[in-house]
Amino acid sequence: MVTAIIVAAGKGTRMGPNVDKLFLEVAGRPIVAHTWERFDRSPSVDEIVLVVREGMQAEFEELAGVNGFTKQYRMVAGGKERQDSVWNGIQAANPSAEIIAIHDGARPCVTETIIADCVRAAREHGAAVAASSVTDTIKEATADGLISRHIDRSKLRAVQTPQTFRAEIIRSALGEAQARGIAVTDDTAACDLIGQTVRLVESATPNPKATAPSDIPWLELLLKA
Amino acid sequence: MVTAIIVAAGKGTRMGPNVDKLFLEVAGRPIVAHTWERFDRSPSVDEIVLVVREGMQAEFEELAGVNGFTKQYRMVAGGKERQDSVWNGIQAANPSAEIIAIHDGARPCVTETIIADCVRAAREHGAAVAASSVTDTIKEATADGLISRHIDRSKLRAVQTPQTFRAEIIRSALGEAQARGIAVTDDTAACDLIGQTVRLVESATPNPKATAPSDIPWLELLLKA
Repeated sequence: MVTAIIVAAGKGTRMGPNVDKLFLEVAGRPIVAHTWERFDRSPSVDEIVLVVREGMQAEFEELAGVNGFTKQYRMVAGGKERQDSVWNGIQAANPSAEIIAIHDGARPCVTETIIADCVRAAREHGAAVAASSVTDTIKEATADGLISRHIDRSKLRAVQTPQTFRAEIIRSALGEAQARGIAVTDDTAACDLIGQTVRLVESATPNPKATAPSDIPWLELLLKA
Repeated sequence: MVTAIIVAAGKGTRMGPNVDKLFLEVAGRPIVAHTWERFDRSPSVDEIVLVVREGMQAEFEELAGVNGFTKQYRMVAGGKERQDSVWNGIQAANPSAEIIAIHDGARPCVTETIIADCVRAAREHGAAVAASSVTDTIKEATADGLISRHIDRSKLRAVQTPQTFRAEIIRSALGEAQARGIAVTDDTAACDLIGQTVRLVESATPNPKATAPSDIPWLELLLKA
């Protein structure tokens, strides 16, 4: 059994003060409806847990109705930080789930290929994440804006979601982060705390996250294609 | 005096075997015509050196005519590697140029703001480069595709072009790279060889490089805006 956790509890402050980025209409539907649909239709996923902001449950239920989603889903309220939201999602997963796939609600271009590849890699390796090579030339900067280090780009990967894990591994990794009071920026970083390595799974098609208003036209283009 | 060197000698193999990416039509004109126009119109730039593939001179002259470019320009043939092309361009710059601005022909969205900011930073600091913060989560990978290091994103910058230098600094830096037989991936890396630090100049608007076919729709969108 595979549970997908769609993290849809953030508001995205960079979109503006009164904008809920997940409900921005792109290619005719809210961003999060596109995301949800990809998992609703995915043969690799058995159930969906949506982590939403408290008070938003009705809006999400309406989305499911309007879009005719049929896969079993459950909703749970988000926590203070992303890490807390993911934790709440994991608690709500079916106890018999073997694989947990964590995905950003704001990444609507996720494909069945990358979902299936990440689920398979998690089964084989324990932990995996969608990633793409980095085309930009990346430097490390000092606090006062000078280049401090030139980094060999061929070794760099930009990681996205899905991030997929055997259930006991992500429970143990995030539990360890909580116990030690460590804030992790993403769930693969938590794996470090328990000595679990993470496989990078090549994401062949663009899988951007809606973050700033300037991302919207490109998402529109990708979702209409 | 400020000389802009537009590096337009690459063919861009990732676009396909018989495609010259610089001459792909985007928003009604070849990509490199957009790039050239931005420098042709820039009050920050006094002359332009185009580094082109041998045999392409006539195509570029036609571009200048069709688009009505008025600023003084010169053409020079590219070398084997980008570094050689840049070197050829620098040799062709007016000897009285104080500032050299090196720019990728395949970055057509460059703005007067970022050109002016980079030129100013080079005057003040000696070497500068357009850069943007990195929104992706970046990891270092092992050769067999596992995450080997989690990198603090807040310290990372993606560098672009223009890369701007006081003329004597870039001559000395690239000369040192040549003398020591070192291939540098970008011109700021050569500055390291002579102990010259490089200022990162925030690029406020998207300034992507045309690399793969999937970049084209986004460039179209940006250039039509």
